[in-house]
Amino acid sequence: MRPFSAIFVPDELAEALSDRAWLEAMLEAERALVNAQSLAGLVPAHAATAVTEVLRAELYDVGQLAAEGRAPGNPVEPLVRAIRARAGDAHAEHVHRGATSQDILDTAAMLVATRALRFIDAELAATADACARLTAEHRGTVMAARTLLQQAVPTTFGYKAAGWLAGLVEARSSLTALDLPAQLGGAGGTLAAMGDTGTEVARLYASELDLREPVLPWHTRRGPFAELAAALSMTAVAVAKVARDIVLLAQTEVGEVSEGDGGASSTMPHKRNPVQAVIADACARHARASAALLVESGVHEHERAAGAWHAEWAALNGALAAAGGSVAALARSLDGLEVDAQRMRANIASATLSEAERFGLAAEQPEDYLGSTDAFIDRALALYRGAR
Amino acid sequence: MRPFSAIFVPDELAEALSDRAWLEAMLEAERALVNAQSLAGLVPAHAATAVTEVLRAELYDVGQLAAEGRAPGNPVEPLVRAIRARAGDAHAEHVHRGATSQDILDTAAMLVATRALRFIDAELAATADACARLTAEHRGTVMAARTLLQQAVPTTFGYKAAGWLAGLVEARSSLTALDLPAQLGGAGGTLAAMGDTGTEVARLYASELDLREPVLPWHTRRGPFAELAAALSMTAVAVAKVARDIVLLAQTEVGEVSEGDGGASSTMPHKRNPVQAVIADACARHARASAALLVESGVHEHERAAGAWHAEWAALNGALAAAGGSVAALARSLDGLEVDAQRMRANIASATLSEAERFGLAAEQPEDYLGSTDAFIDRALALYRGAR
Amino acid sequence: MRPFSAIFVPDELAEALSDRAWLEAMLEAERALVNAQSLAGLVPAHAATAVTEVLRAELYDVGQLAAEGRAPGNPVEPLVRAIRARAGDAHAEHVHRGATSQDILDTAAMLVATRALRFIDAELAATADACARLTAEHRGTVMAARTLLQQAVPTTFGYKAAGWLAGLVEARSSLTALDLPAQLGGAGGTLAAMGDTGTEVARLYASELDLREPVLPWHTRRGPFAELAAALSMTAVAVAKVARDIVLLAQTEVGEVSEGDGGASSTMPHKRNPVQAVIADACARHARASAALLVESGVHEHERAAGAWHAEWAALNGALAAAGGSVAALARSLDGLEVDAQRMRANIASATLSEAERFGLAAEQPEDYLGSTDAFIDRALALYRGAR
Amino acid sequence: MRPFSAIFVPDELAEALSDRAWLEAMLEAERALVNAQSLAGLVPAHAATAVTEVLRAELYDVGQLAAEGRAPGNPVEPLVRAIRARAGDAHAEHVHRGATSQDILDTAAMLVATRALRFIDAELAATADACARLTAEHRGTVMAARTLLQQAVPTTFGYKAAGWLAGLVEARSSLTALDLPAQLGGAGGTLAAMGDTGTEVARLYASELDLREPVLPWHTRRGPFAELAAALSMTAVAVAKVARDIVLLAQTEVGEVSEGDGGASSTMPHKRNPVQAVIADACARHARASAALLVESGVHEHERAAGAWHAEWAALNGALAAAGGSVAALARSLDGLEVDAQRMRANIASATLSEAERFGLAAEQPEDYLGSTDAFIDRALALYRGAR
Repeated sequence: MRPFSAIFVPDELAEALSDRAWLEAMLEAERALVNAQSLAGLVPAHAATAVTEVLRAELYDVGQLAAEGRAPGNPVEPLVRAIRARAGDAHAEHVHRGATSQDILDTAAMLVATRALRFIDAELAATADACARLTAEHRGTVMAARTLLQQAVPTTFGYKAAGWLAGLVEARSSLTALDLPAQLGGAGGTLAAMGDTGTEVARLYASELDLREPVLPWHTRRGPFAELAAALSMTAVAVAKVARDIVLLAQTEVGEVSEGDGGASSTMPHKRNPVQAVIADACARHARASAALLVESGVHEHERAAGAWHAEWAALNGALAAAGGSVAALARSLDGLEVDAQRMRANIASATLSEAERFGLAAEQPEDYLGSTDAFIDRALALYRGAR
Repeated sequence: MRPFSAIFVPDELAEALSDRAWLEAMLEAERALVNAQSLAGLVPAHAATAVTEVLRAELYDVGQLAAEGRAPGNPVEPLVRAIRARAGDAHAEHVHRGATSQDILDTAAMLVATRALRFIDAELAATADACARLTAEHRGTVMAARTLLQQAVPTTFGYKAAGWLAGLVEARSSLTALDLPAQLGGAGGTLAAMGDTGTEVARLYASELDLREPVLPWHTRRGPFAELAAALSMTAVAVAKVARDIVLLAQTEVGEVSEGDGGASSTMPHKRNPVQAVIADACARHARASAALLVESGVHEHERAAGAWHAEWAALNGALAAAGGSVAALARSLDGLEVDAQRMRANIASATLSEAERFGLAAEQPEDYLGSTDAFIDRALALYRGAR
Repeated sequence: MRPFSAIFVPDELAEALSDRAWLEAMLEAERALVNAQSLAGLVPAHAATAVTEVLRAELYDVGQLAAEGRAPGNPVEPLVRAIRARAGDAHAEHVHRGATSQDILDTAAMLVATRALRFIDAELAATADACARLTAEHRGTVMAARTLLQQAVPTTFGYKAAGWLAGLVEARSSLTALDLPAQLGGAGGTLAAMGDTGTEVARLYASELDLREPVLPWHTRRGPFAELAAALSMTAVAVAKVARDIVLLAQTEVGEVSEGDGGASSTMPHKRNPVQAVIADACARHARASAALLVESGVHEHERAAGAWHAEWAALNGALAAAGGSVAALARSLDGLEVDAQRMRANIASATLSEAERFGLAAEQPEDYLGSTDAFIDRALALYRGAR
Repeated sequence: MRPFSAIFVPDELAEALSDRAWLEAMLEAERALVNAQSLAGLVPAHAATAVTEVLRAELYDVGQLAAEGRAPGNPVEPLVRAIRARAGDAHAEHVHRGATSQDILDTAAMLVATRALRFIDAELAATADACARLTAEHRGTVMAARTLLQQAVPTTFGYKAAGWLAGLVEARSSLTALDLPAQLGGAGGTLAAMGDTGTEVARLYASELDLREPVLPWHTRRGPFAELAAALSMTAVAVAKVARDIVLLAQTEVGEVSEGDGGASSTMPHKRNPVQAVIADACARHARASAALLVESGVHEHERAAGAWHAEWAALNGALAAAGGSVAALARSLDGLEVDAQRMRANIASATLSEAERFGLAAEQPEDYLGSTDAFIDRALALYRGAR
């Protein structure tokens, strides 16, 4: 639904969020279920093997599943029917046994998110690397600190980049701290159809999937989505802060940075637009909005929500796509960002020194008024190294 | 990016919002431009004819345009290059003459919205028709009015449906009141490259497109998007109100309505879930969130925004897709909605009559305490007939 | 709850949104009700007179009403009890007769909004007047048009101000187009306790209040709030656009405008911060968020919502306070805004002329490349004059 | 700005978020600053003592500070002037030395939040206690699990309450995990006016305040606000889930729970509205909206934002007030919640057993189909005990 999506969302990420990727994740959940039930003795081993053989994505038509999913309101119901048909009468009863659609879809959501987060993390690492380089390289590059967009006192570009770096590292930490759970509760969250082995199956299921085993089923307790939303919006904010600063520093009248291959204009070939920073900013807006919708959709009635659950799927995909798009665009912006140290120095209006003067200090060299920037730079770089 | 989109967004609407549809709309804008400039004497008639001949969607690769659009940050720049290449040296100068990418994209957005709104309007009309039928049919069907989800006093299902109807008719009015403008301003909104004919070209351009001629270019004055957002979110709220009521009335313990072909469950065949109402509710949440993002993205810097503009495209598509999806789902829910008048009557707890008793009235028949419901029903039906 | 509210919300507006103002509005609704019932013959004239005598705000303790309102969840219930106590046994039955709490509170909301809108409209008129002056005065003041915050082509400050003006005039139109309704439906929206006179009482009630008579009660059809939200967020966007441009033009490196009495800094006396534009931007963010919440709270269950209704009150007050605060701050910013025409001219980088050159025009004077700015300025001024 | 605020926000919390509380927090920040500078040798001990003597809230007029704060855009500037005036010429230079307004206001925000969180935590603990009691008491109380608001399979009320409990405990953990930092950076975040002692002063300052020492100043890296927003919206979602369930269970036709002292109605004395759950739901909507605004306001330009910073104050206060209000209302709802175990059992439609039947089990006793509910209840109670 995003027009010209490739402008904003890298192909690899788009692939990780595609219907095909969701189908594969749903099949993985079904596979983990039957394997767990086999290990727990609920399903004979040969039956589990027979079932897993038909759990291959190429056997199913994603478009058809979506179309058939409109009547039951989700794609799991037609998928389970299709799997059972392929498994044949002998094994149909071992497919999706004791599970509910939401078990499969919630688990798939966690798997899809896990893979998309890998992409996002790699791009975020690239942005951090770039900021660390800028921090180190421009430790002594004097420029004006600007408050309310007015020049205030001297600072260095290295220190500005250190602030960007700290934000990106913190965002990355919030993403890597996520510990996403599997979902298995059955129709009412009670695992009633699994007899005495319910919790054991749930443990094995999570283990098969390499997801966390939750304390209880979380069909209507949407902490995992809220935590994803929080980490993705923190990421979007950290990215947008850098992007906004780049756009401001790249203004014609400021001219302190420029994107290596600034965007062409259809009418104005002389311009060198900070396009990737602009894309990062646009994507970050979407990421925050999708994340807020994910939180807003977190109030679920009784044992399965009538609307809020269905709203989560696109909100999650949207938040991952947009957050990832923003990070990737910032990585492109920072990659080869040109810094004009001379212009930075030249732009310092004499006014910016008066603060220093007010404290009785001489004012000939802005370098004399950099305070603790070096110490703070060291701390940011240490934070960065610690997070790698 | 919406997983299993077909569950939520009807094919026809998805088509109207596809990249192909956007491409066609962009080409229409370019066609209107060269035709307007021909009429204004800026471009020779034969050149305009030559240019329009290459403005056919099948000549361009939508995927490639999106991929190439990442560098300049929009798909118009590569499209114009491709058109110029096809037009050849003789006519390249008459392609996109004096226009800026935003002229084409904003105009395309208005064309895409216009077509999507046609779909939404038709579905909204269907929901209104269904509610009008329910209103007329159940004018005398007594049921409990419920406040804070507690039974309060008697009302009729016809009157409840009349309230739904009024909301849907009002939403439809807000959509049909939209009068979307063309966009033409050139690089800085000054039409500087069109000499003295600027405003005349702008007038002809809007006329060719059957869009409103705006008072001034609106590159950074996003009223049209705000108005779209307002009408779409009003639609989503009106739809969600009906959907929520249906879900509540369909509860097992209430049982006053049910969807004709209630959704199957992957585990519980006995259930008759109000799935289409649930989908309508889920889509309406997305529509409101996208509409809010569209408004939030309305603050544009100087003569072209650095991020807010780029964020609008997906927000608009998302709001149209989700609003349309919600309306279409509600239409499916209402189509064949089964109303259990006996259950409605049986559900009235005696408590609901005490309000009437408080005013000294006898209380044997709830029919005696329906107040002005008939008069209000007549008004709602008149509103509906007036809006057709 | 807004820390140091006076920074953001003018006293007069704060007063119009105070609990005292809400109390007075609730009492007006009760007065209109008893008067309407008297005119309709439901209440004896002398009883109506007796009741209206105790409908004076000074007789009631606003703080106590709020405290007592926690148990029933609204302030009307304790207010009605208090009024009945004052009216005495003889007249208690004529107080709040046949009405429900929501009738009084919704009507009060419309009255409070009407008065707050008067303040907002006056401030908005002041901003439009200021922009009209700037438009006329700087019709020929050449400056750079900036796209993606890069200099693009020449424009004039008059034309930029004309764009601001058009946005503010359009916002004002959207506010003045609001036609807020009275609310009267009784417990279930049926006016059941008013016998045959229900619709007549409702008509007289609206007339007494100088509010629109709605087609039907709108207890759970929240169009009026959605329309308020739409108009207030359009206002906030129009204001924020101007504020953002002022902040950008006031940057040290741009220096094209400055606020007459720029804000002092606690540490940097040399700075001249565009503080009022900053406040306008901050308030506009709140106005959009409150407006979005008002829309989001528009989905009401059955005949009275269990939460969404209660959420509206603060969302409405918040949207009015913040929108009004943003408009008032922009009015202060524009009042005495200093425009540095020389700096505008000096800032035009030679690059900005190349677009003009591309069309084969000579490039010595940016004045030669202003296109249709004059025509557009005339249109914006005509729009402004038509709206006064 | 919240009409009849006492309905929603408990007095104690309102006090903790009042202007007076903010003033006291700002004075604490100034006190910590001068004390830290004294310890670091920047300010003579007797001067620090003299300054701290005038840092008492009763010496300043909060209303006047707000009014005077409009020109500079924040209340710190007039406060510092007032403190310096009281400190006299001898000590004025030691007041607010080397700090910037944002240092004081951000630090005050963290102190205010800390205190408000104490209130919220205590109320949240009360809700968890109540849910733990319900969980233990109703471990064997059979009721219908409901999916999409349709009866599905048997469960127990104890298990439902265990899910509520887990959500509330997780929310509480996210709040207690917050580790809020002090803010000290000076005009440009460089601590330039503190010579070599900058980082030492910053360390001592945080220590005096019992706040975390941040890695670097975070004037434009708003992680602490984002984390507050995330924890508060998770709290609001957890609360709203319980509140929504209570409202649904309290429906006339369901009748499985009721609030001990259900809210009276101004017109319908027979109703027993779940008013406190309704208030909790309404407040939770506001908390989520304010939290989303806090995140959205996290993108700060350069070294101090021109609008986003100013927008945070009310967003923070609003999120704390509304989250706290929602938790407190839920505590009132749960306190004395009446559970009708017989009705729960009676409501189980026979349909709910067919799922169990599908797995070949006899269906006479729903107690036989409770699956792992006991095990899950034990886990939830263990989680609860671990968090106390």
